[in-house]
Amino acid sequence: MVQRVRAQAVIDAVVAKADEDGHGVAVAVVDAAGTLVAFARTDAALIGPVEVAQKKARTAALFGTDSIDLGRDAQPGGAIYSIEHTNGGLISFGGGIVLRDGDTVIGAVGVAGATLDADEDLARLGAATF
Amino acid sequence: MVQRVRAQAVIDAVVAKADEDGHGVAVAVVDAAGTLVAFARTDAALIGPVEVAQKKARTAALFGTDSIDLGRDAQPGGAIYSIEHTNGGLISFGGGIVLRDGDTVIGAVGVAGATLDADEDLARLGAATF
Amino acid sequence: MVQRVRAQAVIDAVVAKADEDGHGVAVAVVDAAGTLVAFARTDAALIGPVEVAQKKARTAALFGTDSIDLGRDAQPGGAIYSIEHTNGGLISFGGGIVLRDGDTVIGAVGVAGATLDADEDLARLGAATF
Amino acid sequence: MVQRVRAQAVIDAVVAKADEDGHGVAVAVVDAAGTLVAFARTDAALIGPVEVAQKKARTAALFGTDSIDLGRDAQPGGAIYSIEHTNGGLISFGGGIVLRDGDTVIGAVGVAGATLDADEDLARLGAATF
Repeated sequence: MVQRVRAQAVIDAVVAKADEDGHGVAVAVVDAAGTLVAFARTDAALIGPVEVAQKKARTAALFGTDSIDLGRDAQPGGAIYSIEHTNGGLISFGGGIVLRDGDTVIGAVGVAGATLDADEDLARLGAATF
Repeated sequence: MVQRVRAQAVIDAVVAKADEDGHGVAVAVVDAAGTLVAFARTDAALIGPVEVAQKKARTAALFGTDSIDLGRDAQPGGAIYSIEHTNGGLISFGGGIVLRDGDTVIGAVGVAGATLDADEDLARLGAATF
Repeated sequence: MVQRVRAQAVIDAVVAKADEDGHGVAVAVVDAAGTLVAFARTDAALIGPVEVAQKKARTAALFGTDSIDLGRDAQPGGAIYSIEHTNGGLISFGGGIVLRDGDTVIGAVGVAGATLDADEDLARLGAATF
Repeated sequence: MVQRVRAQAVIDAVVAKADEDGHGVAVAVVDAAGTLVAFARTDAALIGPVEVAQKKARTAALFGTDSIDLGRDAQPGGAIYSIEHTNGGLISFGGGIVLRDGDTVIGAVGVAGATLDADEDLARLGAATF
């Protein structure tokens, strides 16, 4: 279980860094079933990333795999091509990072709206505070 | 525009009161387009309210009408019966309250997971802090 | 968490009684997020109940309320009319029973395919073995 | 027709082997129309595989082709590219195996959640017990 207070701490860390770096982002923390625990959108964020951040987190949680890794194998010709169309649609690029309690997957954080590299870095920063 | 900091203050007020009263709730703040700005689910909340809270907020924002008022007229035989099936599905009971800046609708807050009356009271409390 | 072995025991109990009574049924056990843990369809069952049983279980789990009770308030004019259109569609009649661990909702069992009364009785029988 | 008792035997064989090998898996047995007959998720399984296992079985049953074979031709540039978007979404990698009665396709078994190779081996094991 991802407790609300810990989820909020992840959100706060990502938002603070994104604001500092001048990135508008959406940040989502979900539980192991991909259901939302906490979310924030910064004032500079666009609208598209609101869903993307949630899907990045959902992708990582549902398969216990950071979205950048799942995405590598979900490319055309890849070992699990077509998996991105399951579970309501997954995200096959970076920015979704698994949250673990020991070895157990208990949720994930997803960030979208900055550059692809910055989304990934911000999500990793968020996961590191967990 | 609903600024993130103000949205978070609404969430925090609702979460604090819900925890104090022993209610597990989901709380969503959306902008005038019904898009999520901030969200939290307390540790005692069930999963169903996660979507319901967002739809309550969305309902109130999209029509500038608290969900309990829209719901009254959306009953079978009511003046706007069937409107609840538009916009991806609306909620026709209490717990979604419009957020205004002067006379302008700028968003809404939705609460679900407690009793129907408590959801409405918590959403009003959240809106009052706005 | 609903462990697989316990979920299977619920399924087995319902299937045995349904076969004995000559009812073709679908039986689903889900976790607190409404995700399937175990499922069986008896040889005499029709196809429609396959989804209905899962939605009954999902309804009960997501709101911590037996589907017959949620359904009573979701009728036109009822206090939560329109809730049945959330969360991918809920079931507002009997046959979905909450599974608890102490006071905590950890899942639900859903039965469909017999008569409405028999579905409810079978689901209660399954929950009682839990 | 895939009788429930035979479907359950397939599930039991796969679950026993997956538990022995330390893999968390979801296992689905469907009929020739792709409709669920029996399903189980082991305690170590993640949530994403729940849908993937069902889609693997569905893919194999609907086209009478093991999912790994269908997937080979459904890659971009392949002979049946785009078929993976029909029938509610198919799976174009291993883990879905056809169940036959003589030459007649009567259903399929799908396994997801272990490694790609292990999913395929487990599904073949399940089909072999049929």
